Amino acid sequence: MASMMFTDCSSSTTSRLIHFNRCTGTILRRQSAGQLRLPTTAPGRRSCSLSIRSSSSPTPAISAVTNSEASAIVIDGKAVAKTIRDEITIEVSRMKESTGVVPGLAVILVGDRKDSATYVRNKKKACDSVGIKSFEVCLPEDSSEEEVLKSVSGFNSDPSVHGILVQLPLPSHMDEQNILNAVSIEKDVDGFHPLNIGRLAMRGREPLFVPCTPKGCIELLHRYNIGIKGKRAVVIGRSNIVGMPAALLLQREDATVTMIHSRTKNSEEITRQADIIISAVGQPNMVRGNWIKPGAVIIDVGINPVEDTNAPRGYRLVGDICYEEACKVASAITPVPGGVGPMTIAMLLSNTLISAKRIHNFQ
Amino acid sequence: MASMMFTDCSSSTTSRLIHFNRCTGTILRRQSAGQLRLPTTAPGRRSCSLSIRSSSSPTPAISAVTNSEASAIVIDGKAVAKTIRDEITIEVSRMKESTGVVPGLAVILVGDRKDSATYVRNKKKACDSVGIKSFEVCLPEDSSEEEVLKSVSGFNSDPSVHGILVQLPLPSHMDEQNILNAVSIEKDVDGFHPLNIGRLAMRGREPLFVPCTPKGCIELLHRYNIGIKGKRAVVIGRSNIVGMPAALLLQREDATVTMIHSRTKNSEEITRQADIIISAVGQPNMVRGNWIKPGAVIIDVGINPVEDTNAPRGYRLVGDICYEEACKVASAITPVPGGVGPMTIAMLLSNTLISAKRIHNFQ
Repeated sequence: MASMMFTDCSSSTTSRLIHFNRCTGTILRRQSAGQLRLPTTAPGRRSCSLSIRSSSSPTPAISAVTNSEASAIVIDGKAVAKTIRDEITIEVSRMKESTGVVPGLAVILVGDRKDSATYVRNKKKACDSVGIKSFEVCLPEDSSEEEVLKSVSGFNSDPSVHGILVQLPLPSHMDEQNILNAVSIEKDVDGFHPLNIGRLAMRGREPLFVPCTPKGCIELLHRYNIGIKGKRAVVIGRSNIVGMPAALLLQREDATVTMIHSRTKNSEEITRQADIIISAVGQPNMVRGNWIKPGAVIIDVGINPVEDTNAPRGYRLVGDICYEEACKVASAITPVPGGVGPMTIAMLLSNTLISAKRIHNFQ
Repeated sequence: MASMMFTDCSSSTTSRLIHFNRCTGTILRRQSAGQLRLPTTAPGRRSCSLSIRSSSSPTPAISAVTNSEASAIVIDGKAVAKTIRDEITIEVSRMKESTGVVPGLAVILVGDRKDSATYVRNKKKACDSVGIKSFEVCLPEDSSEEEVLKSVSGFNSDPSVHGILVQLPLPSHMDEQNILNAVSIEKDVDGFHPLNIGRLAMRGREPLFVPCTPKGCIELLHRYNIGIKGKRAVVIGRSNIVGMPAALLLQREDATVTMIHSRTKNSEEITRQADIIISAVGQPNMVRGNWIKPGAVIIDVGINPVEDTNAPRGYRLVGDICYEEACKVASAITPVPGGVGPMTIAMLLSNTLISAKRIHNFQ
């Protein structure tokens, strides 16, 4: 898991205002230009959920409040993921009855990172819940690359395994790329193989699998009947795992896509042009209300822990988008947690089912 | 070659003005907003080279004129390509002397399309000029897919061939994708293999080859010391051959890239934000002066024949960008012809040399 970051919910440009009006400084400026329908703060109401960036101030977190002026539809990833799991359950059962084949997902875990162990446990649970058979290999931290490759190879040739997942990160003495490349492309349910990404980028080509998190983002748009064709879309972050494939997917659906990254100048201005924003940058509350065009749709992939002394664990999770501001400007928004998060595993199950169907030529 | 298109150099939105002020209608409107330093028309001076879209008017072409107000640096692709060919000549010679190996490029031509035959002849000439050995197989139009695949396979296993090029388009009874996929990825000097495109899209991965035309576009920017990092770039057109890989290349060099296509709304407005424009859409003179931010750099990949009764062949070649307008707004621009065109073959030679060096481990 990424090291914890603490935030004041202010962009760096507005941080100097923090002692006076932590969340509304830039908002008020935008309001004076008459471009955004953002709220003023009022008694008994708060416009932003705050915690304090530890480097700039030792003040403890101020916790969240009501969103009485929120106008955005909340895109309920948890509910959509549940619906998808139900659909998969039916399909897995239908496949088993027709062909006798049960889709199988194998996970390879190396080392004893607690977060990785939790992810793997959650994946196993999710498989169980839909009737997908799960396989697991746990190797010690000091395993050799050859041992991992041997496990990959075993699952590649195992006909009861239709999807293979190597839990990342791997120990630093291993060549991650080498190991991922060893996964048979027919079973690469993560969809990270360059051949898959190439097909995703090319018109007229079809990837075998679409990477799970970006697939989940687009699925949320589809399930909420949010049109993509002809829309301006901004993807914040250009990782191989989320940002880049999300941009390619939006492009495939005829959006006009701009990818924003660490070298981008005027990120705010560019984001403000977007009808659809997908953010996957890992910066808590980076995107403020005044970055958002009124009526935009926001998919927030970020899951960032921020200090919160009122929370049972001393922290809580927030997205890349300052939710309390954004929900008053956007027309629809994913919450964190409960937005994109649950979709990733649902899409992994979906990819495993797709793989099993393809391998066994079952429609 | 694409069927001929005739243009009035006007965007569709301004075509109604054509009988009165063919090229300056939209320009004058932009001028009134004081945003662009565009010229007014004056006696003895023309602001745009015109020919008339045959469907809208039978009037013959009005030919080009002087560009006395042009301020843009002309990016001389012909001269850069010559320099690159000279560099390749030296490297080919050095490799031959050190290893005895001469880089080899094989071209497979199917059918008797005159344009394809011309391209293949030009490629052969270019190979000869730098000392690259060229191989050629010409198959009749009614060849079977198997015969083409056999030729591909032969070149795949021929150690004196380091690059293989299947001249497109292939006859319609053949599966183009199937044949292109058969080319060994180590010899795919066109760089169109999905695995190459995937690597191009992914951070931390390196493609074996970069597709020639987009590589030529970026090379022109490099050779003219035009910075890419942090710049806003717009790519017009999203073909697998030019637009999409050009966008990926700009992205790799830390530009903030937006890809414009047929479903894009407000193409003008988006293009006007760009510091760098690469256009590869095949629409003669589509991008007008008022689409361009003053000082922008323009790489025009379009090569479109337009009717010109004064030209010896009855037509002349123009780009996607209305050059006569653009050269007064941009800081640098590629002409058509003589811009990107000569770079494509230079990059093909470069890729062939790269391939030979890699296969023979020669630095």
